[in-house]
Amino acid sequence: MDKIKAAIVGYGNIGHYVLQALQAAPDFEIAGIVRRAGAEGGKPLELTPYPVVKTVKELGAVDVALLCTPTRSVEAYATELLQEGINTVDSFDIHGQIPGLRSRLMEAARKAGKVAVLSAGWDPGSDSVIRTLLQAMAPKGITYTNFGPGMSMGHTVAVKSIPGVKAALSMTIPTGEGIHRRMVYIELEEGYEEKAVADAIKADPYFASDETYVQVVPCVDDVKDMGHGVNLVRKGVSGTTQNQLFEFNMKINNPALTAQILVAVARAAMRLQPGCYTMPEIPPIDLLPGAREEWIAHLV
Amino acid sequence: MDKIKAAIVGYGNIGHYVLQALQAAPDFEIAGIVRRAGAEGGKPLELTPYPVVKTVKELGAVDVALLCTPTRSVEAYATELLQEGINTVDSFDIHGQIPGLRSRLMEAARKAGKVAVLSAGWDPGSDSVIRTLLQAMAPKGITYTNFGPGMSMGHTVAVKSIPGVKAALSMTIPTGEGIHRRMVYIELEEGYEEKAVADAIKADPYFASDETYVQVVPCVDDVKDMGHGVNLVRKGVSGTTQNQLFEFNMKINNPALTAQILVAVARAAMRLQPGCYTMPEIPPIDLLPGAREEWIAHLV
Repeated sequence: MDKIKAAIVGYGNIGHYVLQALQAAPDFEIAGIVRRAGAEGGKPLELTPYPVVKTVKELGAVDVALLCTPTRSVEAYATELLQEGINTVDSFDIHGQIPGLRSRLMEAARKAGKVAVLSAGWDPGSDSVIRTLLQAMAPKGITYTNFGPGMSMGHTVAVKSIPGVKAALSMTIPTGEGIHRRMVYIELEEGYEEKAVADAIKADPYFASDETYVQVVPCVDDVKDMGHGVNLVRKGVSGTTQNQLFEFNMKINNPALTAQILVAVARAAMRLQPGCYTMPEIPPIDLLPGAREEWIAHLV
Repeated sequence: MDKIKAAIVGYGNIGHYVLQALQAAPDFEIAGIVRRAGAEGGKPLELTPYPVVKTVKELGAVDVALLCTPTRSVEAYATELLQEGINTVDSFDIHGQIPGLRSRLMEAARKAGKVAVLSAGWDPGSDSVIRTLLQAMAPKGITYTNFGPGMSMGHTVAVKSIPGVKAALSMTIPTGEGIHRRMVYIELEEGYEEKAVADAIKADPYFASDETYVQVVPCVDDVKDMGHGVNLVRKGVSGTTQNQLFEFNMKINNPALTAQILVAVARAAMRLQPGCYTMPEIPPIDLLPGAREEWIAHLV
């Protein structure tokens, strides 16, 4: 069987874990890593076997690109890669902007005859699949998604992009019923004022609707732990039967899980009709390697 | 929007709850109920508004049939209904026989240009979807599905079909790591011997591989509670990151949830290409009524 040729676009935290997940997958080969600087300044040891380039064109044939860039660069990269005839998967994580981006990437993907999978991480992503399933199992009721305590990658990246922030960590603390507190730890660039930077963070769309505390610390790295968690609960009605109770919990390494899901979704992208999809729109079995029949015997 | 015309085939426990779930669904109309006796001997009060007939042909146009018969009658009913040009959904629950039945119904469904959804309950069914998702999120590791304590519908029906059993209740008790004890409570028909009946139950494929205790009670109805539960756990590896922890729990009315899932899957059947599917092969979003775009804004 031909292996799927994958490119890693961006090589930060997620890109690092995507490399590991691709190496562990039986059905992928790594075409190379695309990063703005290319191989300038040398490459990290673990990238020795792979080309590290500035643009995907330098890699030859690529079936699918796994976008490991900041969320706000996703649209530009995905649009360009689709135009190059390459499927894309990303973990775009600004919930409110997903429908709009989906419809724009839908057009780009269909025009190119390719597949884009949007917002494929654990939330949005696998949690979205579980919320969808629970909605079908108990159509009336409320689902609460409680995150953490843990480090939010998307929020941390958002803080880092604010002028005056040298290093950052954004922790998510659940306070119940899907309400969260954000605890943001930063190192301040010289010449910036703490209050102004804190206000800019609190005004960012990632933080604007949550109770947010910003604290300056001497060394962000000393307080960093990439573990995270979810407690997702639904109490609802099946037919006319009340009080059906559902709960999903996980305790996970955050970027490792995001990366693993990106790899599973990259596989599914090879099996879908052209268009743009979110995870609840994908048959879950297509996330797994090999033939459906074998998984059905094990998992159904 | 045209409503989906649904027939309920069989009117036992599940059929009763399917009626309620169809009545509560915004996008279905009930074409009628098919049962062996038809309307002979009168119909229950709640069926007053609907035709109750012996064969589906008496109902006029039907889009999808929800099979609420014993599991062992599923194949015969599904095959016949597909030939009549009607989509079918069922909650066939003998795990080991699913791949074989899927391939036979695949042929029948494709020949008819219709859709059959197989084993759509909560296990097999929604639990299968969760097991599939967790397999993708942590490809290495073990998933344990712990059931109960609670009443198993499939096991109870299986016991009832054994000669000498007047009434039955099969309780599933989890003993950890996916191992279960079966506690079977029966009323004995006159002229039958307790030991012979108990041995026949223990030899049944539903019970042969589990520790099973059979107990004769004066009145099964006095010990009956249709609540059930699941505790599904996976500890596994994402990429090369160990110790990713996942857990899904529910406490539910068993036939009410099975019925609700049958209704959601009947909806999905209207959106799938001809063939036979198990639940992990269906995009979860197709279980929900209305347009994808609205759900994506809420759930992703």
